Amino acid sequence: MTRELYIAVVGPSAATPAEHALGEQVGRLIAERGAVLVCGGLGGLMEAAAGGSAAAGGTSIGVLPTADRTEANPYVTVAVATGMGEARNAIVVRTADAVIAIGGEFGTLSEIALALKMGKPVVGLDTWELGKRGGRVEAFVQASTPEDAVSTALAAAELARTS
Amino acid sequence: MTRELYIAVVGPSAATPAEHALGEQVGRLIAERGAVLVCGGLGGLMEAAAGGSAAAGGTSIGVLPTADRTEANPYVTVAVATGMGEARNAIVVRTADAVIAIGGEFGTLSEIALALKMGKPVVGLDTWELGKRGGRVEAFVQASTPEDAVSTALAAAELARTS
Amino acid sequence: MTRELYIAVVGPSAATPAEHALGEQVGRLIAERGAVLVCGGLGGLMEAAAGGSAAAGGTSIGVLPTADRTEANPYVTVAVATGMGEARNAIVVRTADAVIAIGGEFGTLSEIALALKMGKPVVGLDTWELGKRGGRVEAFVQASTPEDAVSTALAAAELARTS
Amino acid sequence: MTRELYIAVVGPSAATPAEHALGEQVGRLIAERGAVLVCGGLGGLMEAAAGGSAAAGGTSIGVLPTADRTEANPYVTVAVATGMGEARNAIVVRTADAVIAIGGEFGTLSEIALALKMGKPVVGLDTWELGKRGGRVEAFVQASTPEDAVSTALAAAELARTS
Repeated sequence: MTRELYIAVVGPSAATPAEHALGEQVGRLIAERGAVLVCGGLGGLMEAAAGGSAAAGGTSIGVLPTADRTEANPYVTVAVATGMGEARNAIVVRTADAVIAIGGEFGTLSEIALALKMGKPVVGLDTWELGKRGGRVEAFVQASTPEDAVSTALAAAELARTS
Repeated sequence: MTRELYIAVVGPSAATPAEHALGEQVGRLIAERGAVLVCGGLGGLMEAAAGGSAAAGGTSIGVLPTADRTEANPYVTVAVATGMGEARNAIVVRTADAVIAIGGEFGTLSEIALALKMGKPVVGLDTWELGKRGGRVEAFVQASTPEDAVSTALAAAELARTS
Repeated sequence: MTRELYIAVVGPSAATPAEHALGEQVGRLIAERGAVLVCGGLGGLMEAAAGGSAAAGGTSIGVLPTADRTEANPYVTVAVATGMGEARNAIVVRTADAVIAIGGEFGTLSEIALALKMGKPVVGLDTWELGKRGGRVEAFVQASTPEDAVSTALAAAELARTS
Repeated sequence: MTRELYIAVVGPSAATPAEHALGEQVGRLIAERGAVLVCGGLGGLMEAAAGGSAAAGGTSIGVLPTADRTEANPYVTVAVATGMGEARNAIVVRTADAVIAIGGEFGTLSEIALALKMGKPVVGLDTWELGKRGGRVEAFVQASTPEDAVSTALAAAELARTS
């Protein structure tokens, strides 16, 4: 699956029920659209997204911070054990053509920032907002629904690939 | 595929025809035995092994040193772009339950050494031999055929998992 | 210098003159207070901070994203070549006891986020502000002067060490 | 110290008294020759080398596999906490202009191999020997004394820099 688009879904390991539902829907839609899901491989939002992908017959990659591959959630298609802690966030983002960020964990913020630094499209869903000197900075797109987030991410990823 | 065994196949990006044939057979046998193949994602031996896996309907992961996922060979099921250069060798090995090393490139030697350091089973196939002070050091098993290599690696991986 | 406090100073490689002045003063104050400066090793804000440290006789470490140590700015005491691209941001932060963030680059935002994720004190100086759902999130201290930033970072680092 | 030569000294964390003595002398000689020592930052051979450097007034960098900088041996001038496990071996080697390998640990073998892969000069001192198909492969220089090792490494590093 080297020609498909890869979409990273990043979010909290301690997801709320609402975030869990968003993650599951985003994962399912990514799979239905034929894209590969990249995530951090652990529980919470990562597990919800991988579960959604699996339910729709999709393929997902879990890039773990730990050194033990068996710590991956049971829904990822394949797991990669980096043993590199938070430095693996850069690999999650690097591997993807676009990033969908859900919820408000600091690790998620680091992945938003790394993606923006690498010039990759970022779509937010009920996640961080950025500002400077009291004003809002619109550095990435904020989507309102899972459908909106996945459509926007796939369109941006397709555009980035062909440009 | 979080319950399957993961076997890394490491070898030269500039593989000889004989090494290429060994890699293809090893990749095919890993797939036929139901295990996931982990490799460095580039050409040469890595491509041969991924091609063998794909021909047998198997699943493979290419863990690239580069930052561009599209540089993966076309046979890997999924590609991970680390952007970390040779440091990705540690991820290839870390992700696997056992390592099969083919041929005599220095990167391959580093993967043999990292696997031994991590306590992972290593099986060699026409690869490096180690020594100290003029004497041979038998730090890992040397196999004589692809069948032997894959059987030995899978048995050692199974044993490592259950111990 | 394993007993001294280590303070990371993170900021843009394309620093404005005002940011450059802030970085130089922060680096100088860190050195005057006997702490080791950690930075990303390149130009702009990183060079300004390392230059300030050097001018005050301090010690600084440049943790480079590139594979070539000689790309470090001339003011760092020692340079480390990771060859890992943006993943090195996690090392900069991991090595420090507290982080001072200056200016508004995305790499800087990633370092703020990684530090918060790792539970390290963060002090901002004319840098990013965070929010959620239209409201401000005060996830880290915003300082108003270099003196304030360095004093706050050192106090927080000292507290983190002894707790 | 961005113009000085950087020499990595790699060896076992559980060093024998003889290896410890070799490491101490190598570290001292590197410092006396004005070069910066790079090591893995932990105990055993790494501590011996850093101690030798410190005794001669030299500068050394400890690049730790762990996430806690305070685990560095007390002799390194500065410590870098990668939190990346064995993947840090690539950083130790990448940062150096040449590598001196002492003793027979697998991590040491990985650093020899990574250095050869990166095209960096390697000098061995009572360390691994390599072979293929029953014959010896002389992939790097074997020195017989600390003086010989340091002189050879510095000459090769100097040559590599100017070529």
